[in-house]
Amino acid sequence: MTSTAITGIGELTTNDDELGDLTDAALVLDGDRIVWAGPAAAAPAADHAIDVAGRAVLPGWVDSHTHLLFAGDRTAEFTARMNGEPYAAGGIAVTVDATRAAADDELTATLRRHVAEATAHGTTCLETKTGYGLTVADELRAARIAAAEVDEVTFLGAHLVPPGQDADDYVDLVSGDMLDAVADHVGWCDVFCERGAFDAEQSRRVLRAAADRGLGLRVHGNQLGPGPGVRLAVELGAASVDHCTHLEPDDIAALAGSGTVATLLPACDLSTRQPLPPARELLDAGATVALASNCNPGSSYTSSMAFCVTTAVLQMRMTVPEAIRAATLGGARALRRDTGDGAVGVLRPGARADVHVLDAPSTSWLAYRPGVPLTHAVWRAGTRTR
Amino acid sequence: MTSTAITGIGELTTNDDELGDLTDAALVLDGDRIVWAGPAAAAPAADHAIDVAGRAVLPGWVDSHTHLLFAGDRTAEFTARMNGEPYAAGGIAVTVDATRAAADDELTATLRRHVAEATAHGTTCLETKTGYGLTVADELRAARIAAAEVDEVTFLGAHLVPPGQDADDYVDLVSGDMLDAVADHVGWCDVFCERGAFDAEQSRRVLRAAADRGLGLRVHGNQLGPGPGVRLAVELGAASVDHCTHLEPDDIAALAGSGTVATLLPACDLSTRQPLPPARELLDAGATVALASNCNPGSSYTSSMAFCVTTAVLQMRMTVPEAIRAATLGGARALRRDTGDGAVGVLRPGARADVHVLDAPSTSWLAYRPGVPLTHAVWRAGTRTR
Ligand SMILES: [Zn+2]
Ligand SMILES: [Zn+2]
Repeated sequence: MTSTAITGIGELTTNDDELGDLTDAALVLDGDRIVWAGPAAAAPAADHAIDVAGRAVLPGWVDSHTHLLFAGDRTAEFTARMNGEPYAAGGIAVTVDATRAAADDELTATLRRHVAEATAHGTTCLETKTGYGLTVADELRAARIAAAEVDEVTFLGAHLVPPGQDADDYVDLVSGDMLDAVADHVGWCDVFCERGAFDAEQSRRVLRAAADRGLGLRVHGNQLGPGPGVRLAVELGAASVDHCTHLEPDDIAALAGSGTVATLLPACDLSTRQPLPPARELLDAGATVALASNCNPGSSYTSSMAFCVTTAVLQMRMTVPEAIRAATLGGARALRRDTGDGAVGVLRPGARADVHVLDAPSTSWLAYRPGVPLTHAVWRAGTRTR
Repeated sequence: MTSTAITGIGELTTNDDELGDLTDAALVLDGDRIVWAGPAAAAPAADHAIDVAGRAVLPGWVDSHTHLLFAGDRTAEFTARMNGEPYAAGGIAVTVDATRAAADDELTATLRRHVAEATAHGTTCLETKTGYGLTVADELRAARIAAAEVDEVTFLGAHLVPPGQDADDYVDLVSGDMLDAVADHVGWCDVFCERGAFDAEQSRRVLRAAADRGLGLRVHGNQLGPGPGVRLAVELGAASVDHCTHLEPDDIAALAGSGTVATLLPACDLSTRQPLPPARELLDAGATVALASNCNPGSSYTSSMAFCVTTAVLQMRMTVPEAIRAATLGGARALRRDTGDGAVGVLRPGARADVHVLDAPSTSWLAYRPGVPLTHAVWRAGTRTR
């Protein structure tokens, strides 16, 4: 393997408590790992050097929440919503029909196209979910396709009760045969715990069955109104509860006292004209916050983590460092990939070499220059992808 | 001259009342003009043809409000504001000092860099303002430099009372010697009519003096609170009043009954954590609305008209067609360039060939895919720039 030094870093965000934030810094990559990070003057020799001329460098985005195993188009539904129709979870069924009808090759191509789009804008670690199949065969197919393409795959059989089916019968299927079929292909199980989807007891059954099979837990909760999702996630020790748009004081306190990450999805809230989540209150209470795109064709069709960071700073009263940390280390924590050998969301020796160079002197420009694409270069696991 | 046909247009927004919105359409460009627009099946022969494969095509953005004659950096001020400090108009003085100290070449290079950035993302007609000089010599220099680079130049000597000067003495200067010096180089005069800047009577003096010299009028008004800006703009027949963040019912009624465009600057409101302007109320009352970037290093450092459109749809209850029209034909109207030979913001025979091809099947994607750069190709005055 040959080593590569990235030199001339004007501002380096490491997310490492000891290294901190550095100015006039350098990084050295070897293979798929970071092998050195520190002040430019102390950098060791490397086989190659790339001078980034004073640009800001940070860990690649960790997008811990997407739904990219889909087919079909929902532009018309979005446009109708912008003309005044409310968001209905039932729109998911439209994508389910199209996804079931699509060939494997088409699903793979669509997934790859969206992953490539995300990578081009700085996302270097990505989770995606099943959940547009909702039969044993279709969920298994989605899990297999996803497992070949992305870092983390989550089983979301409990996305919606398929139209015409009995909810409890469907929960039996999800927590039994469906979980057995997909368990070898996924690391996580998620449930859409929301009025109109699955209630607390149904959600608990699915999640407990998943934990029994060794899967990590995630929850979609408190998106469209107050509900039991957050407290259920904390009760079961889920790695993350996602959306958190409508929180009550008890929810915030529960998150703050837990190891469960509050994953906020502001592009989804804006795209469905919901309020933005109470990020400031969560941070002030001591909760761990992540930002993710929720990229999906219905409620949040963006892969832009930069847009999420911009929104978090301009509209959710997060500071720039808080928002950047949430979109990198926060996502890594939500995926339990923030520590140890090959960690993501952090730049230190031993971490995966996921590096994002901005065409900007400061990460502040991610909020200071809203809408201006700022990705200059990206390395993912040591390979330059842009 | 050789003609170029743009074929395979999946969705064509013309902003022309007779042509309307078309599917399966074509455009023909010759020299710097559109010479034909209509259904693909009826398109005349052209020397060259470019098939855009079903993509959406619209007029280039018309950004009718920017401040690009500047030097210096205000990243730290922005970051401090995001950490909780309020926006103060006095920050403008920081840019004034840096701009006065900069060489002509530096100002030109900075202006060109920002114009190129805007053009790369679909802006094909751009206004910029003086206002960081605030002496006769510095305002004249800014006007001359800008006039060589952009479509429309506005004199904004009345941006701020220079620190240490008497306000009325400064208004005398602006409405006398300064206007005389710049009048041959600019088409417009603007005033920052706001508490902390110029009051209604001071603003009226400047604008009347400008009208006497044949300049068109624009006003910065109602940005930081209710005030007389909107009503003054309507009273004097200004082409546009810009910001309109804090409007009272009388302001909306005055705009609706006038030829003055309400130019909304949502990126500025977000970047200063102000509320967003009442776009829906303005449209429902019958006012003409424009969207512009207000690109400047203090309160809105973005050139992204797409971001403004996204925000208008997701957060200001504008429909996609309303937001697109505001960012194209609305801006053209605010610059009085929406009609006649060489019109901008519209695609019809005789209009300037300012064409924006999206990497999307529908203009809805500008809001459906927030933060995802969608510009595929751009022609400005018949020249392909991207
Ligand atoms: Zn989701
Ligand atoms: Zn302005």
